[in-house]
Amino acid sequence: MSSGACTVNTVLIDLSGTIHIEDTEIPGSVKALERLQKSKVNIKFVTNTTKESKRVLLERLHSIGFNVKGEEIFTSLTAARYLIEQRKLHPLLMVDEKALEDFEGVSTENQDAVVVGLAPEKFDYNTMNQAFRLILSGAPLIAIHKGRYYKRKDGLALGPGPFVTALEFATGQKADIVGKPELSFFLSAVEEFSVAPSQCIMIGDDIYDDIGGAQNTGMQGILVKTGKYRDGDETKIHPPPRFVAKNFSEAVDFILTLIL
Amino acid sequence: MSSGACTVNTVLIDLSGTIHIEDTEIPGSVKALERLQKSKVNIKFVTNTTKESKRVLLERLHSIGFNVKGEEIFTSLTAARYLIEQRKLHPLLMVDEKALEDFEGVSTENQDAVVVGLAPEKFDYNTMNQAFRLILSGAPLIAIHKGRYYKRKDGLALGPGPFVTALEFATGQKADIVGKPELSFFLSAVEEFSVAPSQCIMIGDDIYDDIGGAQNTGMQGILVKTGKYRDGDETKIHPPPRFVAKNFSEAVDFILTLIL
Repeated sequence: MSSGACTVNTVLIDLSGTIHIEDTEIPGSVKALERLQKSKVNIKFVTNTTKESKRVLLERLHSIGFNVKGEEIFTSLTAARYLIEQRKLHPLLMVDEKALEDFEGVSTENQDAVVVGLAPEKFDYNTMNQAFRLILSGAPLIAIHKGRYYKRKDGLALGPGPFVTALEFATGQKADIVGKPELSFFLSAVEEFSVAPSQCIMIGDDIYDDIGGAQNTGMQGILVKTGKYRDGDETKIHPPPRFVAKNFSEAVDFILTLIL
Repeated sequence: MSSGACTVNTVLIDLSGTIHIEDTEIPGSVKALERLQKSKVNIKFVTNTTKESKRVLLERLHSIGFNVKGEEIFTSLTAARYLIEQRKLHPLLMVDEKALEDFEGVSTENQDAVVVGLAPEKFDYNTMNQAFRLILSGAPLIAIHKGRYYKRKDGLALGPGPFVTALEFATGQKADIVGKPELSFFLSAVEEFSVAPSQCIMIGDDIYDDIGGAQNTGMQGILVKTGKYRDGDETKIHPPPRFVAKNFSEAVDFILTLIL
């Protein structure tokens, strides 16, 4: 076995661009996931969504044919909720209506924190000002992630990052970022398994957020050449990915050689 | 005469906090301005407004009793318009409705620039996104100024700065700032007089934006202890202000000793 001391028992898997693109399977991914599941490793699906709730993600994965359970999905919204509960915060939730169900039961009275996701309908002056005043009065600023922009059907559109940056600039306070590539995101995702980072391997199509982020925690990373992958991405981080796979199926086959 | 080669022939005067506060004269300022006007120096009133048009400012000054002409006022809105005309731009104007009259005649068809002032009703996601796309397509980002926040009757409120910063973060493009303390603001204000910066003196209550900004261009600066002045402000910049005056009236008397 070439991996030496690196016995893998936990696999983190990115969703969009890695095992599916919108409502379509990346070919071979359903079968590959089944092979991985038979091997009895811990599995966690990790994604940087700011507006799709866990339920919506799960429905999509099921409709494509993936055998996934709700508790196997860890999203940046989950991470935000985790942080809120840990710190017993009552946040102003600047998140999309569709994401609100992931915060069910969280008290938003007597607000003492600000959580920012991608929430176009909440990026108006009055809500921004409300957030500004809360932060000035000592409330932490929590960002789901700090993405600059994303691709929409009609072209590029602003992500949550610019609005987080606006609040940082106004208040002089840095945001706590909860999504990938933050170290705490990866560690929280596998916390229930009580494993060392070196026993974890992350599969994803984003060289910085998935692979760089995971490897910075001491996990290993497998870059797949699907989704947002562009030629040469594997050379953009040091150390480079543990392995570069044509797709998720090949990534799984590589992992199976590590755990057999 | 202690000023040596520094023969002053041009005086720049801040408005709010220097000669008036809202609708009230800072005592002695009307008479002091008359003394200064008799001395035949060039006079320009310079202010960082983002929403009061020149007409509104002029009406207020007249109602207080100041003898000021429209062409003697140079504002950050004037500076923005100046820049727009110089570069023949067709801007998306993210400025307050009340400021729009200072841009009368400026074409906003086939937009190729973004101008940002304090415009709460235009800081919604769709307008921000429109600005973002324009900048990505090569349009310059012009900021009236980059103030973080300002004091409103109901408390602190976000200034234009955070929204400018949001667009900078999203696009990776730095804004051109036109208001104080930018070098170009002071130079544009006195351009018509064809004078050297060393012949100009600026009177204001803001140690950074008025005095630091002016002195960085080679002008001299007189800090007045009215308006936003706080104890010790005069020690916050190097070199310190040329002179620190109790108020505008004392500042004028000092200047008269320089030009006699």
